[in-house]
Amino acid sequence: MTASPIVLLTDFGYRDEYAGVLKGVISSINPHAQILDLTHGILPQDLVRASFVLTSSVSYFPRSSIFLVVVDPGVGTSRKPLLVKAGEYFFIGPDNGVLSSVVEQMGHPRIFELNHPEYFLSPVSSTFHGRDIFAPVAARLSLGMPPEELGTPCPKMKSLEIPRPVKTDQGLDLCILFVDTFGNLILNLTAEQFSQWKQPGCCMSIQGKNQIHKISTVCSTYAKAPDNEPFLLISSSGYVEIAVKNQSAWKFLDLESLETRIWLEASPGNEAFPVDQGD
Amino acid sequence: MTASPIVLLTDFGYRDEYAGVLKGVISSINPHAQILDLTHGILPQDLVRASFVLTSSVSYFPRSSIFLVVVDPGVGTSRKPLLVKAGEYFFIGPDNGVLSSVVEQMGHPRIFELNHPEYFLSPVSSTFHGRDIFAPVAARLSLGMPPEELGTPCPKMKSLEIPRPVKTDQGLDLCILFVDTFGNLILNLTAEQFSQWKQPGCCMSIQGKNQIHKISTVCSTYAKAPDNEPFLLISSSGYVEIAVKNQSAWKFLDLESLETRIWLEASPGNEAFPVDQGD
Amino acid sequence: MTASPIVLLTDFGYRDEYAGVLKGVISSINPHAQILDLTHGILPQDLVRASFVLTSSVSYFPRSSIFLVVVDPGVGTSRKPLLVKAGEYFFIGPDNGVLSSVVEQMGHPRIFELNHPEYFLSPVSSTFHGRDIFAPVAARLSLGMPPEELGTPCPKMKSLEIPRPVKTDQGLDLCILFVDTFGNLILNLTAEQFSQWKQPGCCMSIQGKNQIHKISTVCSTYAKAPDNEPFLLISSSGYVEIAVKNQSAWKFLDLESLETRIWLEASPGNEAFPVDQGD
Repeated sequence: MTASPIVLLTDFGYRDEYAGVLKGVISSINPHAQILDLTHGILPQDLVRASFVLTSSVSYFPRSSIFLVVVDPGVGTSRKPLLVKAGEYFFIGPDNGVLSSVVEQMGHPRIFELNHPEYFLSPVSSTFHGRDIFAPVAARLSLGMPPEELGTPCPKMKSLEIPRPVKTDQGLDLCILFVDTFGNLILNLTAEQFSQWKQPGCCMSIQGKNQIHKISTVCSTYAKAPDNEPFLLISSSGYVEIAVKNQSAWKFLDLESLETRIWLEASPGNEAFPVDQGD
Repeated sequence: MTASPIVLLTDFGYRDEYAGVLKGVISSINPHAQILDLTHGILPQDLVRASFVLTSSVSYFPRSSIFLVVVDPGVGTSRKPLLVKAGEYFFIGPDNGVLSSVVEQMGHPRIFELNHPEYFLSPVSSTFHGRDIFAPVAARLSLGMPPEELGTPCPKMKSLEIPRPVKTDQGLDLCILFVDTFGNLILNLTAEQFSQWKQPGCCMSIQGKNQIHKISTVCSTYAKAPDNEPFLLISSSGYVEIAVKNQSAWKFLDLESLETRIWLEASPGNEAFPVDQGD
Repeated sequence: MTASPIVLLTDFGYRDEYAGVLKGVISSINPHAQILDLTHGILPQDLVRASFVLTSSVSYFPRSSIFLVVVDPGVGTSRKPLLVKAGEYFFIGPDNGVLSSVVEQMGHPRIFELNHPEYFLSPVSSTFHGRDIFAPVAARLSLGMPPEELGTPCPKMKSLEIPRPVKTDQGLDLCILFVDTFGNLILNLTAEQFSQWKQPGCCMSIQGKNQIHKISTVCSTYAKAPDNEPFLLISSSGYVEIAVKNQSAWKFLDLESLETRIWLEASPGNEAFPVDQGD
C-alpha cells in the first residue's frame, strides 16, 4: 500500500516561513508523509485563482492525494473548516468556496466539518488555521485515520462562482481569470464554449490602455504563432488564453489591470478566425 | 526509528540554483534524507529576520530535526562554522548570531565548531560554505554521526541582538522587525510586553510618508477588524503586528522604509484600546 | 539499491501550478520517486541561464540522478523530446540546446529520441510537454525502465552556444551571463581564461548608464573586499563575477540591461590587479 501524498496549495508566498511550518506540523505527526508543493504563489486571498489551479491540477495527482488548501481570508471567523472526499481525492480547507469547483468536478462528495479539537494543535490561534487545524488533520488522514473520526458529516458547502461569460447582443463579455508567469492571459472561456463561437465573423477584442486590440488568429501551438501579434490558444487546462509568441501578452497589450474589458463578437464584416490544423 | 529531517533556511531566493544544490549535496551523502524547505526567501543577509523565523518555527518541527541555516554575510572570513544541539533540535550554520535566539530559547546548548575538513566537500570554496561545509555536515548528522565526531566543543557562540523596545518618557519606541507577504508589519513587541501597556490612554503611532497614523483598535482576528483602518493584532508567532483587513498595511500606511518611527504611548487624553473578546 | 532522484529545472516560476503538476504526474507513476527542485526561477525561455545552472550544479547531485529540464520555447513544434545518458547522469528535455553543455561536460553521451507515445500522457497537449512527455518518462526511468525502451537512439543533438569572450585588439569583449539573487554579475569568463589575463596592465571595464566603471580589485572572498567598490571574484561555479561587498553590484553600477558593454583590456598605463592571497 502506498501512502497518500499531501499536496499544498496556499497564498503564503515564498518570503515567509508559513508554508515551511505546515511541513513541520505534518512531519511531526506523520514522519513518513510525502509532501508535494502545488504552489504557494496564489495572490493573497485570490479564491478564484486557487479554485482554478486546483481544478486544473487535481487529475494529475495520485488517487487518494490529500489537497491541503489554505487560502483563507475568513480565518478566525465562524466559517467552517472542512474535509471533503470527492472522486478519489481528499480536500481539506476552509468553507469559503475555494473547494467547490473541484468537488463539483469530482462528484459524489462526502463533506465533513472538522470539529474535533483533539486532532488540532492546541491552542488554536485565530490567524493561522492552516498550521493549527488543517495541517494536523491532513497528517492524521495520511496516517489512515478515517474522515468520520476527524469530523462530522455536513450537508453542504459554500459555492464559489467562477465568473461565466455573459451573453450580450453582440456576443460574449469575458474576463481575465489570471495572468500566468509567461504573461499569457487566461480567459473565462472554455474550449467547448469557444468552439461554439469560432466561426466566420467572430473576433476577440480587448481594451488596452490606449486602444482596442482585435485578435483574429487562433493557433494550436505557441511556435506556430506569428511574431509580434496576439493570438488565441486553448491552454493546457482547457481554457482559452491570449498569448504573444516569445513575449508577455500582458506587456504587449499594455494592460494595466485585470479588470480590463474583453469581448467576443460575431458581427458581420469580421473575418473568420484562421484556425491551423493542430498536431 | 525515524530519521531526522533536514530543514533548510536560507537567503538564497528562488531564482538561482543555490538552494537546489544544497539538496543535491545532502542527497549525495544521505540518499534517504528527508529535506524540508522552511524558506529561502530571507532577504539577503537579514540575520534578524532569519533568527526570528527560526525562533517562531522551530517548535512545529519534529524533535531531532536538523536546521541548516545559511544566512552568511561573513562567508570566507574567520567566523566559525557551528553545529549546536539545543533542546531536542540541531542547528548548523555560521557563528554570526543567527542561531543565538533559537538556541537561547531551547536552552542547554552544546556547541561544536565544525573543524574536521574530512567531512566537508573538497576543496572548500570561499563563497559557498552552505554547499561545502554545512550541507555535508547536516547530511552526516542525519545519518547518525554524533556531533562529537563532526566538530570540537566550543565554549560559546556569538549573540544576535533582536532590537528590544526602548523605554522613553512617553512610552516605548518600537521598530518593524519585518513585513510579511500580506503586508502586515510585525513589531519588536511581544504579546506579554504589550499586555503591560494595553490600558486606557495607550496608543500606537506610526510615522507614514506624510502623516502620523494613530492606531487605537486591537482585534483578535483579521475578520473582526473594521474595514479600511489599521489595527493591532497578536500574530501567530506571539508578536504584535499592524494589519489592515484584506489589505496590505505596508501600502495602506504608505510606508517607504522599514526604518520608520513607531511608538506606543500612554498619555492622558488618549482613549483606551478597545479590545474585543477573542474567540 | 537506491532510487534515482528526479531533479527539476524549469522556467515555470512559482506563481503557477506548473511545477507542482510535474510532481503530481511523477508521483502518480512512481509513488516513491524522490523529487528535488533545482530551481523553477529560470527567466522564461532563458536557455543560456538554464544550461549554465545545469552545468554548474550537476556534479553536486547523486549519481544516476535524472534531470528533468523544461525550458522549452519550441514546445509544440517538431523539435525532438530527448533522453540523454551522459557520465553517470540522465537528462530529459527538449532538443533545443539546453542540454548540450552539460552533456559535453559529462562526456560519452547516449542520446535517445522519446518517440514511444505509450509512455506519455494521453492526449499530449501542444503546450505542456513537461507534463505530458518529459515527466512521465522521467518517472518511468526512475522506476528502472531502461532508456532503450523509452526512446530510439539518435545520432546527435542540438548545440547551444554559450557566448564566448571575443578577442579584440585591446583585449576581450565579455558579456553578462546572468545576475544572481544577490545582484552579482556572472560573466562569460572562466577562472582559467581569466588567469591568462590577470597581469599588470589589465583592467575590467563596464559601461554603466552614465559612466564607464573601471574595476581593478580582485578578491578571494566577499568579506575581504573593500566597501563601496566593485571587485572581481571567481564565483563558486568557476566563472568570474563582478560584486560589491554587502550590496547589489547590479544596483551599485546603475545598470539598466544585461546587454551592457563589458571588456577586459591589457593596455599600458593600467595598474595590475592587486590579487590577495586567498585562503
